[in-house]
Amino acid sequence: MNGTVLTMDDRWTSYDCGMVIVAGTTIREVGPFDQVRLDQLGIPKEHIIDADGGIIIPGFVNTHTHIGMSLFRGIADDTANRLKRVIFPLERKFTTPEVVYTASLHSLTEMILGGTTCFADMYYFATQTARAVQESGIRGVIGQSVATYGGPDAPDFPTSIELVHRLDNLLKGNDRVMAAIAPHAPYSLTKQELLQCAEIHSDRDIRILSHLAEMPFEESYTDEHYHMRPIPFYRQCNLLGSRTTMAHCIFADGNDQRLLVETGTGIAHNPSANSKSGKGIAPAYDLITKGARLGLGTDGPMSGNTMDMVHILDITAKFQKVLKKDPTIMTPRDVLRAATRGGAEALHLEKSIGTLERGKLADIVIVSTDSPAMFPLYDPYAAIVYAASPADIAMTMVDGKQLMYRRKLHTLDPQAIRIQAADMVSHIRHDMHEFLQ
Amino acid sequence: MNGTVLTMDDRWTSYDCGMVIVAGTTIREVGPFDQVRLDQLGIPKEHIIDADGGIIIPGFVNTHTHIGMSLFRGIADDTANRLKRVIFPLERKFTTPEVVYTASLHSLTEMILGGTTCFADMYYFATQTARAVQESGIRGVIGQSVATYGGPDAPDFPTSIELVHRLDNLLKGNDRVMAAIAPHAPYSLTKQELLQCAEIHSDRDIRILSHLAEMPFEESYTDEHYHMRPIPFYRQCNLLGSRTTMAHCIFADGNDQRLLVETGTGIAHNPSANSKSGKGIAPAYDLITKGARLGLGTDGPMSGNTMDMVHILDITAKFQKVLKKDPTIMTPRDVLRAATRGGAEALHLEKSIGTLERGKLADIVIVSTDSPAMFPLYDPYAAIVYAASPADIAMTMVDGKQLMYRRKLHTLDPQAIRIQAADMVSHIRHDMHEFLQ
Repeated sequence: MNGTVLTMDDRWTSYDCGMVIVAGTTIREVGPFDQVRLDQLGIPKEHIIDADGGIIIPGFVNTHTHIGMSLFRGIADDTANRLKRVIFPLERKFTTPEVVYTASLHSLTEMILGGTTCFADMYYFATQTARAVQESGIRGVIGQSVATYGGPDAPDFPTSIELVHRLDNLLKGNDRVMAAIAPHAPYSLTKQELLQCAEIHSDRDIRILSHLAEMPFEESYTDEHYHMRPIPFYRQCNLLGSRTTMAHCIFADGNDQRLLVETGTGIAHNPSANSKSGKGIAPAYDLITKGARLGLGTDGPMSGNTMDMVHILDITAKFQKVLKKDPTIMTPRDVLRAATRGGAEALHLEKSIGTLERGKLADIVIVSTDSPAMFPLYDPYAAIVYAASPADIAMTMVDGKQLMYRRKLHTLDPQAIRIQAADMVSHIRHDMHEFLQ
Repeated sequence: MNGTVLTMDDRWTSYDCGMVIVAGTTIREVGPFDQVRLDQLGIPKEHIIDADGGIIIPGFVNTHTHIGMSLFRGIADDTANRLKRVIFPLERKFTTPEVVYTASLHSLTEMILGGTTCFADMYYFATQTARAVQESGIRGVIGQSVATYGGPDAPDFPTSIELVHRLDNLLKGNDRVMAAIAPHAPYSLTKQELLQCAEIHSDRDIRILSHLAEMPFEESYTDEHYHMRPIPFYRQCNLLGSRTTMAHCIFADGNDQRLLVETGTGIAHNPSANSKSGKGIAPAYDLITKGARLGLGTDGPMSGNTMDMVHILDITAKFQKVLKKDPTIMTPRDVLRAATRGGAEALHLEKSIGTLERGKLADIVIVSTDSPAMFPLYDPYAAIVYAASPADIAMTMVDGKQLMYRRKLHTLDPQAIRIQAADMVSHIRHDMHEFLQ
């Protein structure tokens, strides 16, 4: 209570001095602040969280990242052909279960401090990421990466599929941490393998996460091998649809966009990472206006360098405005919607999260207005999108449980994680130069 | 001491565990940490500032802003033709000396907390801004806006010129707060008036600040009236040169760029504001490679919404990479240089500030590496540009004097300023709707 509540519901309902009442893991009531009602419900004073004039919003949903990579952040940024020249060699040499677990924990401290309450991840050793997520209290869709040549955790495709089964068995019945199969990209699996991924997805009823229409060479690759563009090719592989989320979709023409919308495919838009790599910017505004399930993502810490969602808001609006040469499009409301409710839609979780409405899960964030950039507050949407910093996040709650309050983490110990990571980082720093020439 | 020193000198000298020794207002020595040398110099323990593993850099130089506008921040963002429909009417109604003074103080809290040590401003009631700057301890070039129709502080051009004289008289002999004349733009003054501004600039030996090649309509305006493009027209008005700084220069073709470089004109690049208004992005990388004096700016708080420079770094790199479709250009070194040394060059102050070198003025910032996004630290330039937030700034020093240490301001009281501003904001909020339809 004592904050501006932005519900992000269909009618953009907000309350200047509002309150959100949580019972167990869910939201019981949202409305204007009402002490009489609080007394009636017998809510004790010590259970009331004072938003202190801040802004109360649904938690951010990060629709695409690789949190197990945070110990590589900042290595050889700005290198041409970095995926093949830097990232793959680093992963082959240094990606172990221990590194993925520790890097995941480190990323999670940044994400929770930055107001993220749910995210989708795809990486190797996914059971290690799932373990870190379980401990942290955050909500996650955890994808095990699969590819023709496997990865640091598997020598080939069949072995990486084994890891998917193992992950799914581990997470069966877990509502907060959900398993996914994550075929890497159209160019790193055969058509047969991609079709098999789609089968596992329907047999096991797990989500699909993948990279799509991200690389400039992807179009000529699928044209040469399959005589079609990447997005129609994925449709042919049964990979588009109501339980799948495709990251990037930078190179999506009108027909591609129609396919994504018609199939109800989730889209993860990653403008910070896509611009850093010089690839380009997805037509996010066009996709939204056509009714796409579009959320925002940070991408991994080697790609976007920050794991919080606050850093993504401003740049999302600004790239669309420049692309369209129109300051009136992609407003703060559009952006904040994409970062919360749009993300829930992109992960096909909109029935349970994404808005502050009765019956939804209590994934809630408070944005403080104490810092100078947050004053004056004529428009809370504009303040969050154009002026907030991650350090302005004052509370992060998932399933009704506070994971962070006033910048103190409740489930993770960032200092201990950093000490644990420091040895691994020394080792990486010492050995990385041999192949980064 | 106890931090990574990035000197930003010609050879990119840095010290992993370095120290900067300050004597009075200037830098006496920069080098690796050396306790023997400290003892030799007899520097007492209580004068040593522990950077605590952070990064020590020259302070940020914000080359273009309007700090007296911060009480309008967030009003009707994303409106088409906002300058004429929103900003000018707001200013006519609400811009008073008291508002400019209070808004300036409020902006200065954000700037100092964000590591800015020097900036250039152009606005109305400039003596009020100068007064706030004087109190804050920051370094500034303060421009009095002049235009054919004056502004909220003057009914016409001659009256606004009177204000320039008054400002310059006030600041004569002040090395830290410097006066400038600020003709608004090519389209808001006559050629005769622009020539007169250039005369005052050389007679009084004060800087010129202006907006140039910012508006999409500007080219057709100068073409119609003067049969040339805006930048050559300004040259004809004697407004380009060694003591002038032009904001924006979005629409600068090859010949325009050559003119800017040849005349040694300073350029203020404002990618955050220029993208929000959908206008486009200046060819900053091309300008830098041609040898331009290019710095970065936030623009005013109605345009860019944040007044700290940390928010500008990331977006500067990313827009250039997308424009050129090349991830290898506009590296973190290029960006950090533009934000510090490049800014000093753009304001023609590079002899006294912009690098950490012996004899330069002690304008120094410490960037903390405590937050999760700043770990690991393989490349301090990349960490600052791609991962830092304004809240990571741990110390801001100007002229050897700490203005902020560990997030506490020493010269300004942000709470008192906010209380003072709150009444003005209520008044604006109450009355603004009558003309914002």
